[in-house]
Amino acid sequence: MFAPPVNRLITELARFPGIGQRTAQRLAFHLLRASDEEALALADAIREVKETVGHCEICFNLATDPTCRICQDERRDGDVLCVVEEPSDVIPIERTNEFRGRYHVLGGALSPIDGVDPEDLHIVELLGRVSSNGVREVVVATNATTTGEATALYLADAMRERAPAVTVTRLASGLPVGSDLEYADEITLGKAFRGRREL
Amino acid sequence: MFAPPVNRLITELARFPGIGQRTAQRLAFHLLRASDEEALALADAIREVKETVGHCEICFNLATDPTCRICQDERRDGDVLCVVEEPSDVIPIERTNEFRGRYHVLGGALSPIDGVDPEDLHIVELLGRVSSNGVREVVVATNATTTGEATALYLADAMRERAPAVTVTRLASGLPVGSDLEYADEITLGKAFRGRREL
Repeated sequence: MFAPPVNRLITELARFPGIGQRTAQRLAFHLLRASDEEALALADAIREVKETVGHCEICFNLATDPTCRICQDERRDGDVLCVVEEPSDVIPIERTNEFRGRYHVLGGALSPIDGVDPEDLHIVELLGRVSSNGVREVVVATNATTTGEATALYLADAMRERAPAVTVTRLASGLPVGSDLEYADEITLGKAFRGRREL
Repeated sequence: MFAPPVNRLITELARFPGIGQRTAQRLAFHLLRASDEEALALADAIREVKETVGHCEICFNLATDPTCRICQDERRDGDVLCVVEEPSDVIPIERTNEFRGRYHVLGGALSPIDGVDPEDLHIVELLGRVSSNGVREVVVATNATTTGEATALYLADAMRERAPAVTVTRLASGLPVGSDLEYADEITLGKAFRGRREL
């Protein structure tokens, strides 16, 4: 029905999670209607982000330098590490203003069914940080989903073995079960931080 | 909160109609997580579409050649022209299989409040096509919105003056009032085609 370049654009847009064929078509026509300047600004922004944004060498958060802005910040408390699944999970936690420690981004959650095993996540690096530096507490803030819970239990076991002096905590059950952390509101997430319990 | 390239990507994504700040953030993180290959395929598809897709010289539909595939198709009936607001409106009409004529894309609808006057649309070109070629009927398929209706009435007046022999029709009231043509289902739109009435 469409010219091949239009079809290709629709196909690429439909790869976004939650964007179906119909919405992708609508977005494509928006780009066709838009000025060259506006459409190419999006293309350039995608290219720039893939070229300049990488992962922090220490915590694996997003970073444009070798280390991220939080790891570079001397005022952050190095005693407490917050472990999250994805870089996008750092944002809602920062927004609560409840946490002044540092982060560790796993890069996903354990899910043997999907072929995600401990060696696919940044768990070795986490255990290294926890046992070598003066870390007092690790807050496990993986999602309140089956895979997030399984990951939390796995981490608690691994840390009891490798760094028994470190307290491992988990966000309180303020989070609605089955939901993703990325969508939690500040108040619920703040409560969950204050009510964290030892694993 | 984010690195500048990430913020820039979110800003560009939030320009899409119906995509808010939150969704734009989610789409941006999807692109950050995606492989370079997948993300750059989208950037390239946007660039390609803006470089290769232009407007048909005859009907102003989208085209990768000087004229579009419908204008190039000898089997299409040159007696009947269907006038639509946007290139995206051609698709749902083609899908009904009710129409075998040719199109004319106005490039919008009259809206003095938004500064869209007759000279901003391809109305002169439409009147030229209608008075010089053997056009028998013009089906006005602008949206069933206030601006779409106003455009239809304006076109009916203009054509009565310039080409009094041509019959001007309007899609039947099968379309729910206030809705955009782009979202109509095939059956409703097919009925509207069959029930078109003279203006």
